[in-house]
This record gives sequence, structure tokens and C-alpha cells, in this order.
Amino acid sequence: MTVNLKNFLNPRIKMSKMGEFQELQPIDGLEISSVSADLYGDGRDDLFLAYFPDGANFAAVYTMSKVTSASINWNLKIKRHFVKALLVNTKNANTFTGIKGATGLKEIANTLSRVLTLKSSQSPKGVSEVTKITDLIFASTGVIGEEFPYLKIKKTIPELVKKLKSDQNKFVWFKAASSIMTTDTRPKVAYEECKIGNKLVKISGIAKGSGMIAPNMATMLSFIFTDANIPSVFLKAILKKVTQTTFNAITVDGDTSTNDMVAVFDTGKAKNSKIYNVLDPKLQEFEKALHRLSLNLAKQIVVDGEGAKKFITVNVIGAKSNVMAKNIAFSIANSPLFKTAVAGEDPNWGRIVMAIGKTGENIIINKIKVKIGDHLVVEKNKQAESYNEQDMKEYMKWDSIIIEVDLGIGNNTFTVYTCDFTHDYIDINADYRN
Amino acid sequence: MTVNLKNFLNPRIKMSKMGEFQELQPIDGLEISSVSADLYGDGRDDLFLAYFPDGANFAAVYTMSKVTSASINWNLKIKRHFVKALLVNTKNANTFTGIKGATGLKEIANTLSRVLTLKSSQSPKGVSEVTKITDLIFASTGVIGEEFPYLKIKKTIPELVKKLKSDQNKFVWFKAASSIMTTDTRPKVAYEECKIGNKLVKISGIAKGSGMIAPNMATMLSFIFTDANIPSVFLKAILKKVTQTTFNAITVDGDTSTNDMVAVFDTGKAKNSKIYNVLDPKLQEFEKALHRLSLNLAKQIVVDGEGAKKFITVNVIGAKSNVMAKNIAFSIANSPLFKTAVAGEDPNWGRIVMAIGKTGENIIINKIKVKIGDHLVVEKNKQAESYNEQDMKEYMKWDSIIIEVDLGIGNNTFTVYTCDFTHDYIDINADYRN
Repeated sequence: MTVNLKNFLNPRIKMSKMGEFQELQPIDGLEISSVSADLYGDGRDDLFLAYFPDGANFAAVYTMSKVTSASINWNLKIKRHFVKALLVNTKNANTFTGIKGATGLKEIANTLSRVLTLKSSQSPKGVSEVTKITDLIFASTGVIGEEFPYLKIKKTIPELVKKLKSDQNKFVWFKAASSIMTTDTRPKVAYEECKIGNKLVKISGIAKGSGMIAPNMATMLSFIFTDANIPSVFLKAILKKVTQTTFNAITVDGDTSTNDMVAVFDTGKAKNSKIYNVLDPKLQEFEKALHRLSLNLAKQIVVDGEGAKKFITVNVIGAKSNVMAKNIAFSIANSPLFKTAVAGEDPNWGRIVMAIGKTGENIIINKIKVKIGDHLVVEKNKQAESYNEQDMKEYMKWDSIIIEVDLGIGNNTFTVYTCDFTHDYIDINADYRN
Repeated sequence: MTVNLKNFLNPRIKMSKMGEFQELQPIDGLEISSVSADLYGDGRDDLFLAYFPDGANFAAVYTMSKVTSASINWNLKIKRHFVKALLVNTKNANTFTGIKGATGLKEIANTLSRVLTLKSSQSPKGVSEVTKITDLIFASTGVIGEEFPYLKIKKTIPELVKKLKSDQNKFVWFKAASSIMTTDTRPKVAYEECKIGNKLVKISGIAKGSGMIAPNMATMLSFIFTDANIPSVFLKAILKKVTQTTFNAITVDGDTSTNDMVAVFDTGKAKNSKIYNVLDPKLQEFEKALHRLSLNLAKQIVVDGEGAKKFITVNVIGAKSNVMAKNIAFSIANSPLFKTAVAGEDPNWGRIVMAIGKTGENIIINKIKVKIGDHLVVEKNKQAESYNEQDMKEYMKWDSIIIEVDLGIGNNTFTVYTCDFTHDYIDINADYRN
């Protein structure tokens, strides 16, 4: 049940076939639901709730932006490693919403804690557990600066809690992934399994994002649920490491959302043997599985990038440092001129070397080799002798374009995933509010 | 004869009226010519020559890119402060052209030095002066990586030298400014006068650029000629200072050319009293005039930005440092989401605060005020009470949009000039080679 990365070689085709999506499994110790609070005015789902009756270890990474949403501010303030529930709303970012945004969120937290406590007291187990407001994690995504519709959300909480499902089949997961979408054109889900010691562990993840920040409808969000039993401090260390080469290795337009958040919750129900050390070899397989799952979701976000017609992999190798490789890879991936050339199916390697040069990194021009697909296009400070315009034009018609830049001065590498820059991006972003 | 900056309030309209262009004056001690070496294959002018029979003090600033053209490498290598001529070719950037690009340029230099020496020996003054190849400065702009057409250029040098004109009227200047264009849709010229001591000094400048880097047709170039008499070391200091808030304060797409160059040449023919010190108060008026001229040319480049329909001024005030003001101003000016919103005439201030946040600068959110035109749109971490969507939509229809961000935490300011991001940008850049 591992993800086949070859599926991404021609991602527009593969991704559009629903049959190619992985079938997510229920996670023991997790209940989810999604309903509409009518925030969009058209009845689509806009609230997602994840509830952990027995709690879950929690770790998250957030946007680096200095402008953050009231939900992110909440999560940073309560500083909890063990939580009971996550509530996500779409349509409204709850960013630049003043004091009203923060107090509205607190009212929602009060209601949610009360309703979840009540549910717990009515559970067949007969054990009543109090859910405190500090047991709650929030995420928001949508328009910045519009008044936060906390009353609508608050009113819908009883229904949301009532619909919680512990037996999440693939349709429940799709509904959940759909309920956190803004301008996304498709839900993003991924599933992995691995062993920790001799125990099988399941990981189900959902994500949204259609641009680092979509048309003022902000945000990349991803929520990952597992039945593994890993202390939150180790979970955080693994998540941070995995994020560097997955969610932090994608770019649509170089813009950064005010609401970005990737969170992992583990319920411990897989009952793997206790982990005392982040370097415990038993965690290696989990880290790899989390990496595959995160890369899968991250790539789905790029494929659904606003107006994207082509999926682009920029692979920088032979760099003196990891930072050099990363700077150069992002410089190429964020260059509007490079991205428009790919949209125009133009093998315009001049724009690749331009983007390498503008980083200011200490490269040696004579040593740079650039490949587009398998075709060597640049070496020895000029166009490769073997360059063939016709072959290149054929290659550029593919849906998935791979650029490899070999700097030839070291052993460090970094790979960034992005999409092309098309008329549709302008349409979506220029004409959004009309 | 100073430039009226109000002309730029609605630049598309004003700039398109040729009558609004300033009338450039001849510069004593300078001869110029422009001809076609048929590099484009359609007979348009593609070579520009500036010749200083008695030499000129010279100062230049170059691209910060680590990938530079053979011409820039030449200029950096000869390290001359006193030069005899400048030769500019368009169509070919002479970048990533290997050893052939460098040797081709040297052949051109040999021919040019020989032909100019011959011209000098035939001058009515009867004084024969040798022009050495190290007296020559070069600039190139055009496609990166195509073979450098040095034979075509070499062959045309006798004609180029023969057509040198010392009595440059406005038409000669327009022809010169046109001969350095690539995707530019109009020539860019500017003129200033000032006094150094009791002497009147003239400054005539031309520029090209239609993007920080145009569709692989690279480069912003500007050449400024004056009859002032200022030692090259002081000229360089003034040029560097002026460039920070003019040519370095504009952006079209955030991409940086491999061939950027701004150069000033002074012939000394105005015979102002000798300058011994860069802090000499006599230089203040010259610095101001050079600043006005540079800002004028820089704005003309933005107005002619690829696909640009609107001219945008991003003015950051109240910053703790100049670096903070500059980072935030460029972050807004380079944000594709902000630029597409302006193209769509959408007063989408959420994207402005997003771009402020993503810089990571230590702002205080509550203190930020954002104005679009004269309209306050953001204060106290939310939309201003006085915000009126209808007024804002009216304002966004203007051709010139002014954004003011007051960070409220200091006294430093920076202003960046840019343009909107339109369908035409995608057309020009995606479909360029088809």
C-alpha cells in the first residue's frame, strides 16, 4: 500500500483518475466529521473536526510569516503536546480580523469544549472526560481581513460533533479533505503503512493548498493522523526534518501564506513499544513512511497549483552546501520567466542559467551542466554540442518536466517541485473577486 | 528643462505622447552613431557607438548576477577609469557563449581600435591619437547562449565609425536609444541640466529594458553622458548612491539579468572648476540632477515592463531601518498575487499584508497602516472603519496606483516602482520563440 512515485511522472493524467487515489484507512482512536456552516453561501462543507476520545500526541510546524492568523496564534499560545480535537474552518482566514477575530475564536473553543465534554459523558464506556479549551487546536483558511463568522461556526458545532465517525472509509476521508478546500480543484489525500518494531502502523493524511497562498484565499494546510505511539517531542523532530524536503520544497508562486500549518496527531492505539529516543532505529521506517506521505501530499498541492498545466521537478546536484542547492533550486522554481517558458513549452535554458546567476551563490560557470529531461543542454559555459532543438521541443510537450542542474563543485543536493505559470493563474488571481 | 514628475502620475497616457519626451541636447566631447549589422535579420538598428575624441572619465555599476556576459567580463578586467569609446550590440547577450564569445569580442575590439585610430589621424585637428583596445567599453543585450555574431558586427564597424555625429539633436538621440532596444516598445531618453559652481552642465541619458530580464532577451542598460568634469572615482561614488534609489528600486518580475549595466561618461568640456573631494558642495546639484535623470529613465523602464498596463509605486515608511523598508517594499512589488490583483483592479489589501508578513521582518502588526492612494484601508490589525469598497474600485481603475505602508516603528523609508502582472506578460514570455 506504499505510494508509487512513478504515478507522478505524468501527474495531470494520473491525478485526474480518481481510481489512482490511495484508499485511506480508519485510524484507531480518531473520529472525524465535516459539515457546512454555510460560510460560502452555497452549502458546501466548510468545517472539519478531528476528535481523539483518548487524546493524541501532537506536533506541528507553522508558516514563517510574521503575519499569522488568530488560529495559529491560539495554537502557539496554548503550547500543548497532547490534544483532544482539531477544528478547521475554510472561507475565512481569521487573519487581520482584529480583536473580534480572537474573541470569536475563544467563543468557538468554549462551545466546542462543552459539546465534546457532553458527548464524552454520554459515551457507552460511561467514562466522562472533560475537554478543556486548551485541549483544542485550530486552523483557518480563506480570505484575509474579512470579519470572522464565528456565530455561524458556533451554531454548527453540535451538528459537527454529532456526525463524528470512528470508522472512516475512503468516502469519509474524501469528504473531510473536500471540506478544507478553498480554490483547490480536488481533495488531496494520502496513506502509508509501516512497522514500528513488530507493530503495523497506519498513517492517513489530508491536505489543501492551491498556491503557497491562493487568491487571497490563503494557505497550505495538512493534517496527518496515525495510530502510532510516539511522544510528541520526537514526533515534532521527525515532522520538522520531513517537512524540509516535502512541504517546504514546493512552490507555486513564491508567496507565503499567513495560515500555513502541517500537523501530525498520533493516538497510540497501534500499541507499538515505547520510544525513548528520537534516534531509536525503530523510528526509521516511520520517518520514511511519513516522508513518502508528505511528499505525496506536497506534490498533489503543486499539481493543483493555480492554473498549473505542468508539473516541474528542479533537481540541483553537485552543490557545495545544502543551502546553495536549495537557494538555486528555489530561484529557478520561482522565476516567472522560467515558469512562463515551461508554460510555452519552450526549452529556454538561458532562463535557467539566469536564475542560477541571480542567487549570488559562488558557482563556477565552466563546471555547470544543465539537463532538461535526459538531454544535456548546457556544459562548459555554452550550449551542449549534442543539443537538438527538435528533441527538446518534443520533450517540453510532456506534462511533467524535470530540470537537473549539476553545479559540479560538491556533493549536496536539493529538489524543489513547482508548476508552470499560465494564463489561468492570471485569470484566477486577477479576476477573483469579480 | 527639469523633468516634471507629475507626468508620471498617469504614465501610460503621458508616456505614449512623444511630445512629452524631453529634448536631449548634444554633449560636447561626444560623438554617437547607430546602424544595423542586420543581427535581427530585418534591418533594424542593433549597434550603438559612443566615441570621446579626447576621452572621458568613466564609472559603471553592473549586475549582481554571478553569471555575466563577455562584455561585462571585459569591462571588469580592463578596469579603466578613462575611456575612448563604448560599443553596444543588441539581439545577442554574449552570455554562456563559451570561449568563442570572448575571442569574438576581442576581434571586435581590435577592429574598433584600429578604425578609431585611423579616424583620429584624419581629423582636421591633425592630432593623431591612438585608441587602444583597453580604452574600449562594451555592453551586450539579447538572447543568452546563442553564438555571438562577431563577424557581422566587425564588418559593420567602419560604417558605424563613419556615421559618428558630434551635433546630436533629439532625433539622433532617439535613433541611438532605439538601437539598444530588444523587446522594448519605445526608446527611453532623459535630459537634465545643473550647475557645478558657476558652470552649466548638461546630462543626456538613454536606457533600455522591458523586464529585469526580458524574454531571455536580457537586460537593463543605461548610458549617461555629461560634459561635466568629475574624476571617475567621485563619479562612481555618486552613481552608486543614485542607483540605490533609482535603477535598483525598480522591478518588473524579480528576475535579474546577466548583462545589466549603468554607465556614466563625462567629457569635462563644461570646464567646471576641478573637484578634489566627493563631499564638495559643488557636486550636490549634479547628484540631484543625476538622480532625477536616473529615476526618470528607471520609471520609463517600468512603464514599458512586459505586458504592463499599470504603473505601481510602493512606498514603505515608518520602518526601523532602510533595509527593512526596502525588503518590505520589494516583497510587495515582486508578489505575483499582488501584481495580478492590481491587473484585475481589485483593492485586495490582504495580499499586501501577506507580502509584508512573508519577509520575516520584525513588524508590529497593530501599528501597520496601509493606504491605497489616499484611502486608509488597514489599521489596528484589521480593515479600516472608513474603508469603502466602491471608492477603492474606482481608484483601482487608474493607470498609476500608489501603495503606502506605514510600519509605525521608525523613520526609515524606501520606494519601489513596479508594474502589474497581466496576460500579456505570459504571452510575451511563454510564446516568445514561436
